[in-house]
Formats: sequence, structure tokens, C-alpha cells
Amino acid sequence: MYHRRVPKLWEDTIEAHRRAVRDAAVEAAARLVADQGLASLTMSQVAKRAGIGRATLYKYFPDIESVLAAWHEDHIADHLRRLTDVAEHADPAERLRAVLLSFASITHQRHDGDLAALLHRGEHVARAHERLHAFIQTLVADAAADGTVRDDVPAGELATYCLHALTAAGAMASADAVGRLVEVTLAGLRPAPG
Amino acid sequence: MYHRRVPKLWEDTIEAHRRAVRDAAVEAAARLVADQGLASLTMSQVAKRAGIGRATLYKYFPDIESVLAAWHEDHIADHLRRLTDVAEHADPAERLRAVLLSFASITHQRHDGDLAALLHRGEHVARAHERLHAFIQTLVADAAADGTVRDDVPAGELATYCLHALTAAGAMASADAVGRLVEVTLAGLRPAPG
Repeated sequence: MYHRRVPKLWEDTIEAHRRAVRDAAVEAAARLVADQGLASLTMSQVAKRAGIGRATLYKYFPDIESVLAAWHEDHIADHLRRLTDVAEHADPAERLRAVLLSFASITHQRHDGDLAALLHRGEHVARAHERLHAFIQTLVADAAADGTVRDDVPAGELATYCLHALTAAGAMASADAVGRLVEVTLAGLRPAPG
Repeated sequence: MYHRRVPKLWEDTIEAHRRAVRDAAVEAAARLVADQGLASLTMSQVAKRAGIGRATLYKYFPDIESVLAAWHEDHIADHLRRLTDVAEHADPAERLRAVLLSFASITHQRHDGDLAALLHRGEHVARAHERLHAFIQTLVADAAADGTVRDDVPAGELATYCLHALTAAGAMASADAVGRLVEVTLAGLRPAPG
């Protein structure tokens, strides 16, 4: 079991091995949450599911909160890589819409947009979320400078609005509904008439 | 300890006693989540904090998820009572804004708008959330019939959008920011120009 979950460790460096063990633990926690929810999740369950010893797991993570924080951090980092990629390849005039649609689509597919909300708010979670928020805030501020987004509300508040509104994608029944959600959210960003 | 947490049970009916024990358990769970987060929460901790025996707790709730579901249900029921009250006393033309502002303000004060998100989605949680969603959906549909809200997106989807967007109130720094959030969210609901 150990070798199936943490493969090829004999040919990797110590650092790569550490990364593999860490990832196995994080992945195990993610699967356990999907199966049974977050409450009552224990370090023993994570160790067993990851195919590693409990003592080993504690060398990597002091407690279950830190495993979940690492999971969330990975999730946000991956999300952010994909959004940055979308932003780079989009027409500048359509950049904000393209990124928000991508964010909503990922949230819709994963059904876990609100994941961070109930984690006890640790530094890692806050930092990961800040990077995502800062990215959206920059796009919103750029669009406000171009006059396509309202400037009567701070860009940081508008970014917070966007991220929350678009987590509704996880509750939407279809890709069409996700598209409508993005348009409604964008309508909220438009300069106030008059 | 027992008498302090579940007072006057000798003069109440059996039903009131049951309710008091239930409420003590739910309140204990809420305090524990506030202190230590949701992960690793156990039935033993809840029983101890509530000042009741573990065996007694299990007579009321089969597992920790059901305690948290009851907590969430209470929370939504209370929320809904307050919103219904606001809707009844508001000018019809301002009803939707008044209710959304009230929802956002409660979320802002409690900092727990996303509470339900990470609970394993049980029937109780789903039912409680559906009632809140149905209430907002009705207000949105009424406003759409009056022409003050867009009718090119189903009212149910707009209600989902509202509830998610307004949970951003929990992340807002001031009551003014919450007011701006409500206006931005309402702007997303407005009939599309043209």
C-alpha cells in the first residue's frame, strides 16, 4: 500500500519524498472530507488513508487543521495558476469576464467553492485567499480605470463581492446557469447610471 | 454544573426538558467551533461542554454531524424569522432591499455566513437552507413581476446569487461597506439595459 500511494520515492531526492508524503496526506484528507464531511476527521484516519504511519504524519503536520490548511492552499494555488493563465491569454477588454467565468466554472465543477469558510482561520488559509483576492482586485481596479467597472466602491470590496457571488456556481444546475451567474455578477460591477 | 446549564427542568414538562438538553448541546457545539474550529470536534467534547453525560447526548443526536445540522437549522430559522419580520414592515417598493440589507447585516455581525458550506450536506441543512432560499426567491420573483428586477434569469438563480454575494458581508470591514455590498448586489439584479 505504501508504495502505491507514495511511488518511486527511492529514485527521488529527500525533498521530493517529503513532498510526496505531504501530498499523500493532503489527498487522503480531501478524500475523507468528501466521504464523511469535515467534522470528526482525525489524524489517525488521514494517516491510514494515506498509507503512512501516524508518527510520520505528525512529522509533517502538527494537527488536522494544518492538513486541511495545506489542502486549501494547494487548491487555491492551482486555482490561481489557471486564472492567471486565462488572464494572460484573454483580450484585455474581456479579461475580467474571462477570469470570472473561469473562476465560476472551476467552482461549479469542484462543488467546493466555500471550502475555506469553515476552516478555523489560520495564517496559511488567509495568505492563500489573499493572493486570489489580490489578483481579482487588480483586474477590477484595471477595469475601473478603463471605465468599464464602477469606481464608487473600493476595488477590494468589489473583489470580495465577486468571489462570494461566484461561489454560487457550486449550487448551479448547469453550465448555462453558471454563465448567467457571471453576467449577473458583472452587472453588479457596472458603473452606476447617471 | 448540570443545573446551571439546564435550569429549572424540575418545573418544566418532559418536552421542555428535552428541548433544554438539545439546546444546551447545540450551544456547546457552537462555542467549541468558535474556540477550536470544526475539525476534530467530538461528541465527548460537546457532552462535557454542555454539562451532560455522553450517553444522554447520544439519545438526542446520533453523531456530531447531526448536532451541527441542528445548530445550523436553529441559526437559519432565527435568521428567517428576522427577515420575515423586516419584509412585513417594509414599504413594498423597498422590501427586497430591506431584506437583503438585513441579511447582510446579520451575516456581518455574526461572521458566520458560510457556516453551512462545509457541513456535510444532510437533509436538515438542505431543508433549512431551502426555506431561506425560497423566501428570497419569492421576493425576487415579486420584484421581477413589478419590473424592478430582471426577468431574463430565473428567480431561483438570482436568489442563489444574492445569498452567496451577501455572505461577503462577513468579510467587510464596516457597516458602510456592507451597505455598498447590498447596492452592488442589487445592481446585479436590475433589468438589463436595452
